[in-house]
Parts: sequence; structure tokens; C-alpha cells
Amino acid sequence: MVLLDQTRLPFEEAEIRCRTVPELVDAIRRLVVRGAPLLGIAGAYGVALAAARGEDVATAAADLAAARPTAVNLSRGVDLALEAWRAASGPDAAAAAALHAAERLAAADAAGSAAMARHGASLVPQGAAVLTHCNTGALVSGGEGTAFAVVAEAHRRGNVRMLWVGETRPLLQGARLTAWEAGRLGVPFRLLVDGAAGSLMAAGEVDLVIIGADRIAADGSVANKVGSYTLAVLAARHGVPFVVVAPASTIDLGTPDGRAIVVEQRPADEVCGFHGVPTAPAGTAAYNPAFDVTPADLVTAIVTEHGVFRSGEVREAATQRAEGLSRWGA
Amino acid sequence: MVLLDQTRLPFEEAEIRCRTVPELVDAIRRLVVRGAPLLGIAGAYGVALAAARGEDVATAAADLAAARPTAVNLSRGVDLALEAWRAASGPDAAAAAALHAAERLAAADAAGSAAMARHGASLVPQGAAVLTHCNTGALVSGGEGTAFAVVAEAHRRGNVRMLWVGETRPLLQGARLTAWEAGRLGVPFRLLVDGAAGSLMAAGEVDLVIIGADRIAADGSVANKVGSYTLAVLAARHGVPFVVVAPASTIDLGTPDGRAIVVEQRPADEVCGFHGVPTAPAGTAAYNPAFDVTPADLVTAIVTEHGVFRSGEVREAATQRAEGLSRWGA
Repeated sequence: MVLLDQTRLPFEEAEIRCRTVPELVDAIRRLVVRGAPLLGIAGAYGVALAAARGEDVATAAADLAAARPTAVNLSRGVDLALEAWRAASGPDAAAAAALHAAERLAAADAAGSAAMARHGASLVPQGAAVLTHCNTGALVSGGEGTAFAVVAEAHRRGNVRMLWVGETRPLLQGARLTAWEAGRLGVPFRLLVDGAAGSLMAAGEVDLVIIGADRIAADGSVANKVGSYTLAVLAARHGVPFVVVAPASTIDLGTPDGRAIVVEQRPADEVCGFHGVPTAPAGTAAYNPAFDVTPADLVTAIVTEHGVFRSGEVREAATQRAEGLSRWGA
Repeated sequence: MVLLDQTRLPFEEAEIRCRTVPELVDAIRRLVVRGAPLLGIAGAYGVALAAARGEDVATAAADLAAARPTAVNLSRGVDLALEAWRAASGPDAAAAAALHAAERLAAADAAGSAAMARHGASLVPQGAAVLTHCNTGALVSGGEGTAFAVVAEAHRRGNVRMLWVGETRPLLQGARLTAWEAGRLGVPFRLLVDGAAGSLMAAGEVDLVIIGADRIAADGSVANKVGSYTLAVLAARHGVPFVVVAPASTIDLGTPDGRAIVVEQRPADEVCGFHGVPTAPAGTAAYNPAFDVTPADLVTAIVTEHGVFRSGEVREAATQRAEGLSRWGA
């Protein structure tokens, strides 16, 4: 598998070749490949890779699914390919079935992106100033992504006056990746440090917050990149709609509520430096959760490929997901 | 004047010598010297420098006061030395008077720090986890600082279980300076990105937020480092006390409310990089206010050298300030 190394964007467009599942697991852990939908696709292709190499597919699938704990899409993608592999008879047919499942997932993701963009863009009024966080564009998807796909579609409709891009410390996916994608599409944008979002909302400069999700629990709690919950609290104070855009596969009815979502804690060095430049005294300890959890009462709407749902309608959205999944498998 | 170059801490303890007022104005603008109380002291010494060099003191004072717009202490320190200079007769006596005023201001600031520490520490319960933002310690003060002085005193009393240090993008005064000061004093601390404060509060890990201030308006609105308002909104949601520590000279009854506070907008390159390492694509535009404004209803208490005040008691605190100022001038 050849992956675009997202840790080196936008300064270098470098590719990394993963010849084995352990190499892919390492790439997932190091965030060479990241973003909930793309993690699902990468997981499925990883199972296909193990099958093609004649390796222990079940072990490979377990390793891939455990590479990162929060985004449910990763384990779902792995499971999809694993089930296809199990359902086929004979190693060659099984390997082909796993690869086919991964390809179908990528295609379904692209179609889902387009549908999310269409549904979500209906929520963006003319002349809107939109605040987003982290990176949710083409880099994380078989298509145009999730939240960013909505922004891109609203931009094509001429409705985006300004895209405010939160830089998203510690790994600066907003500054490095969303700014890069916005620039490529010609979306008018400005970058801000995460701490400046409050000042921006207080100044009345934000009409809408649009973010992605890594897992949505049965009670409508949304796990997403750390900093999202803060934006939700600010948006509620300022009466700004807070919109979550994610494929229905992100909804996990097996996770009853926000407290049940496992939040990945990442190494201190991400907080204590950037690209090898230290930002804190040597040996500084850090609190570095990769995600936070926004409770349902702060979420105005959840946009999936099936439509726009209220945060109380997670089960309805998930039911539609079941149909969506069966279509993926068709 | 010899200044410790705070832009290079904690990686290098470099000194900068300012031989002229324009050099000092440049150092203030570049944040070589920063922090509300220290800006006041630097401003007063700047007036003394102009007087000693036989320059146009009134022009120098105006240039110094205008070097940065938000912290009221800067213009107050300048005015204090300017008034002392004006009140003396003959150039030598006037230069000596300006220098003496600056020295008295530095001494008063040290005494004020100790008093703020004493008053503020009474608000820190045993075993407290305290969240702070930016840098408010000995680096900004003739003494131990403002908010950080309270933390240091509470630590000496054995009451600080954990100091959570927000890194404070874009210039990382928390990561670079507060982490350095906490480490030197042996205060147990951990660093976090500014976006992680919400997650930390939601986890019940913060008992108290303690920050400094650059200007407090007559209605109790508090201007402080960008990101402070976000912490106040989060603290209110989680029932966490939000305590502002500042010398009474930070209260400006001439500024009626938060909207009247001029917030300095700083260059985009601070957001688009760190220490020469770019964090965003070349040419990215940024929204970069240095400060934000927290309304009085989100402030639990204001601690000055005179005691602990509710945010509705700004006028009382300011009256005490008048007495304090007359003591400085005594």
C-alpha cells in the first residue's frame, strides 16, 4: 500500500509504502494516515494485504483494529473486509473478496461524501462565516471528506464568506492540512489559534461551526479531535449552530454514552514540541488526549449521507446506516 | 537597560541591552519584555532613560505608552515616571526623580505581588488542581508576579496537587515560561494544548482557574491573553471558580466596559509558525488578537494587593488602588 504521509504536509508531498500489516499499523499510529473515514478504508485494505500475503488474517485484523481506539470506522472497515474474507472459500477467492470489500468501502465513502456535502450545504446560509476544526477533507476520505466536503459544496454554491480554520494543536491538522485544502479549492479562509475561537464568536464573526466525528455514541455524544467540545460550549453560549458531519458508520449504538467512549491518550512530545522544535523545557509532562466528547445537548445537527438528523435522532440515523451498510455489502 | 529576552526562554537565557527609547519600544513590541506589571515597570524606566539621556521626555513617554495598546499598566508606569520628572526642577533632579519613580514602582510591584499571593492563596483549597494560562510569574513582575504568585504561595502552603499549564498559543508563554517557572519552584505541573482544557474540566480535573489580567474595565470585564475567555466559559459550565489576579493598577475606570477595551491585533506569522518553523502553507492569512475580553458575570473573584473582590466590586477595588498609588508616590 502506498500512502501520502500526512505528517509531512503541506511542506512535502511524501509517499510511504507499507509492505506489511505491522508497517501499516505503525503508519496508522504515527498518523501518516488519519481521519475517521480514511482509517476505515485503510483498515479494510490492511486486511486485504494480509490475505494477499497469506498471513494470519484474523491476527492482522485484530492488530489493525487496535491500532487506534477512538475512531469506530477503523474497526468497522477491518470487520467489513474480514467478513468478506471469511465468507469466501479458498485462499485466492478470500483474498480477492477482502480486496473487493476494501474497494467497495472506498467507493461507498466517496458517494457518502457527496451525499453529506449535499445535505450539509443546505444548512449553510448565504454569506456564511463557518468555523471548522482539525482536518476533514479529501485527505481523510475516498471522496471530499465530511465537514470539509460540506464547506466545499457550500463554497461552490457561493455561500461561504469566510472559513475560519482552527489550527488544532498539537498536530496542527487545521493549519497544515485544512489550510492547504482550502487554499487549493479557493475557499476564502483565515487561520486562528484554538484559543482565539471564543474571541471570534464573541465578536459575532461565526455563523456556524461544522466539524467531523470519530465516534457517535447511542446517546448522541460525539467524540472528535480535542478542542471540539470547547467549540461546542462556546457555540452554545453564543447561539451559534454546532453541526457534526460524519458517515452513518461513525454512529456506534454499542457505545451507550459519552463516558463509554475510550479516548486515546497520546505521547507528551506532541505537546512539548512541533516538528522537532521544542516548545517547552526538556522533560515536561503533558496531558494529551487526542479527542474529547461533546454531549448531545450541545449538538445542533448530525449530517450523514442519509440526511440531516437532530442529535436526539441517533437511532434513526443508525437504522438508515444499517441499510447503508447492506448496500455497501451488496 | 538590560532585559532578559523572554522570546528565547526557556532554551536560552539571553540578555538584550536597550540603549535608547526606540530600542526599548521595539523590545516591548517584540515581546522581549512582556506581562502587564513588568510592562509598567519597563515603561517607567524608559522615561527615566530618556530623561538621563537628555532626550525629549514627553515624546519618549508617548512612544512608550503607545508601544502596546491593551495592558493599562504600561501607560500607567510611563505616566508615573513622567509626572515625577515634571514635578522636579532642573534636568538632573528631574532625571533622578524619574529613575526614583521607576525604582519605587518596581519595589511596590514586588510588595504587591506578595500581598496578592497571600490574599489569593486563601482561595486555593487543600489538594487543589489549578489551571492557569499564559505566564504571570516572576518574569512579568518586580516580585513573584500575579496569578503565578498565588500558585507559588499555595504550593508553599502544600495545597497544590497539580498545576495545569495551558500552552498559550501562539507564543507559547505557558509552555515556554510558566512550565519553566513551575519547574524551578518544584510545583507539580502538566502541560496541555489550549484546546484540551474543556476535556480536562469535563473530567473533573480542575478545581480552580487562576489567570492574570491586562486591563479590567469599570464594568468588571477582564482583558487578558487570548484564550482566557474560552476558559471562563468552560469554567462557568463546569462550576469551576474563575479567579483573576492583578494589581489594582490594572483596573481602569476610564474604560467603561469590555467593548471599549482596544485589543491588539498581532502579525499573522505568529500563528503561521513557531520559532521559524512554518506550521501552515506559505501566505496563509490569520486572525491573531493578542487578548480577549471576559465579561464580569464569568469572573468569580478579582484578587488585588488589597484583598479579594467580587467582579461587581471593581469600583471599591479601584478606590483602594487610588490609596495604593498615593503610597507608590509617597
